[in-house]
Amino acid sequence: MGEFDLIARYFSRPTARAALGGGDDCALLEAGPGMQLAVSTDMLVEGRHFLSTVDPAALGHKALAVNLSDLAACGAAPMAFTLALALPRVDEAWLAPFSRGLLALADAHGCELVGGDTTRGPLTISITVFGEVPRGAALLRSGARSGDEIYVSGTLGDARLALEVFRGTLSLPAEIFAQARARMERPTPRVALGQALRGIATAAIDVSDGLAGDLGHVLKASGVGARISAQTAVTLLAGAAQPAWQAGSFSQQQRLAYVMSGGDDYELAFTAPASLRDAVLKAAQQAHTPVTRIGCVETEPGLRLFDSAGQLLAQGFASFDHFS
Amino acid sequence: MGEFDLIARYFSRPTARAALGGGDDCALLEAGPGMQLAVSTDMLVEGRHFLSTVDPAALGHKALAVNLSDLAACGAAPMAFTLALALPRVDEAWLAPFSRGLLALADAHGCELVGGDTTRGPLTISITVFGEVPRGAALLRSGARSGDEIYVSGTLGDARLALEVFRGTLSLPAEIFAQARARMERPTPRVALGQALRGIATAAIDVSDGLAGDLGHVLKASGVGARISAQTAVTLLAGAAQPAWQAGSFSQQQRLAYVMSGGDDYELAFTAPASLRDAVLKAAQQAHTPVTRIGCVETEPGLRLFDSAGQLLAQGFASFDHFS
Repeated sequence: MGEFDLIARYFSRPTARAALGGGDDCALLEAGPGMQLAVSTDMLVEGRHFLSTVDPAALGHKALAVNLSDLAACGAAPMAFTLALALPRVDEAWLAPFSRGLLALADAHGCELVGGDTTRGPLTISITVFGEVPRGAALLRSGARSGDEIYVSGTLGDARLALEVFRGTLSLPAEIFAQARARMERPTPRVALGQALRGIATAAIDVSDGLAGDLGHVLKASGVGARISAQTAVTLLAGAAQPAWQAGSFSQQQRLAYVMSGGDDYELAFTAPASLRDAVLKAAQQAHTPVTRIGCVETEPGLRLFDSAGQLLAQGFASFDHFS
Repeated sequence: MGEFDLIARYFSRPTARAALGGGDDCALLEAGPGMQLAVSTDMLVEGRHFLSTVDPAALGHKALAVNLSDLAACGAAPMAFTLALALPRVDEAWLAPFSRGLLALADAHGCELVGGDTTRGPLTISITVFGEVPRGAALLRSGARSGDEIYVSGTLGDARLALEVFRGTLSLPAEIFAQARARMERPTPRVALGQALRGIATAAIDVSDGLAGDLGHVLKASGVGARISAQTAVTLLAGAAQPAWQAGSFSQQQRLAYVMSGGDDYELAFTAPASLRDAVLKAAQQAHTPVTRIGCVETEPGLRLFDSAGQLLAQGFASFDHFS
């Protein structure tokens, strides 16, 4: 048995839902009657998406989480995934926790590892994930309509705070840093919320590159614009309300910058008709996921941020980047 | 527009069969009624699977071909694929021919690019391919039965000849090298043959690591063994019958080694009942793909190679490696 067969062992498991798992030329999958298969793929490269010093268990979690987040944004239920893994050497002290972190999240979502490829090479992780969604029910980016309200799940900007601490450009109270770091290293894909929003949300996206940019994709695909309340948006930064944070030296504008262009959040941003506000809140409750209404969709293209006095603070997707 | 948006442009195309292609969080696929989805994934790393000097168009072709070959081995019809690509830099002189080679093969098989990811990093290509196959009709590795006959499509060992020339361990007449190199750089996935063999072949695999090893996977999964005719096997080496080759200094044993453990062949090895011999030949004709009957399945485990006098030449999967 070669060393790369050994690697494969860390990822070999019986499959339940897949008709055929790893070990043949192909895996066989079958979506239920009337269901479509949602597919998404991501590639993570050491030095670009993570550092060599990252906890391998957290990396295994995150590698799958970012893909599950794409399924969530479509309202799809996770089914299965494939893993392609290049490794510079076979290091069992790394492989064991990596596979543990990866498969724990997979198990939590009933998402089976059905195939893959392992090879020697610079550390690179590529996952393709499969979910199912009733035909025609997938949440797309293109369905937002003028008058819809805009929501965001959970909190935004915290992963970016941790990144800035690692970069040495920011220092944070210990408890806020620990919270931010957990958000960066172990993001929570909003899988249950995405499915609960089918038939309610008109458009959705997962926030991976920053709210301004990702919401911008929705607005562009839908041919609309939006206004957002700065007062509400700033509350999305988890630490913002905490005493330890209040003692810091962060301006309102800096906080907004982290919320609007933080990145690595893996929350859902979505739109829904004002008439379905109760349905949105009920879906959020069902999914045990807080959501915050931050603004509304308008006919005029572009994204505009207003203060509580109705004053325009910023507009255009790029301008939010320049806050920080 | 960032440079990695530019890359994405080389791979953006309208989709016909997919319900939703690239540009949203997920692609949406739907197999026909009663069909299962066959999924396979591969990762190619520079320096391990190809050299930096390889023709990018040939690399694009091969990156998809090796995945289509897995679909072929299951008897699945190609539908779609995703591409995850890490590149050290955005080099349009490389990207243009790479995407041309990749998409030309995709078009030839009606296989749509439905999503992907591009990032900066050491040159790495990961493709996940999707095909469809009627429920229960996929060709598996586990169906070979004692008494079945064993076939191989096309020719074997030629890619390995080219590799040995590049390694400097072999010199070949120019015309045989050109032929061998084309086989190594632009393999032909046996997609039509795989589909034509549904309902006829009892087991199939694509030969990517050498016939002995890959046929060994079939035998092991099926709980059987096999005998192979050396006299027939040696004819599978394409150049073997050519005058230029005959003038060379290659022993029968060396030729057999290239056939049995060459690697990178992407032919199909399959088994079928003796009673379906005519059906096999008809399927091969339909698919315009030559097949050669090389032996038969036996109850006794293991793989045995016999000469024309019935003398055992070699047995065990590893022993074929030691020919060369």
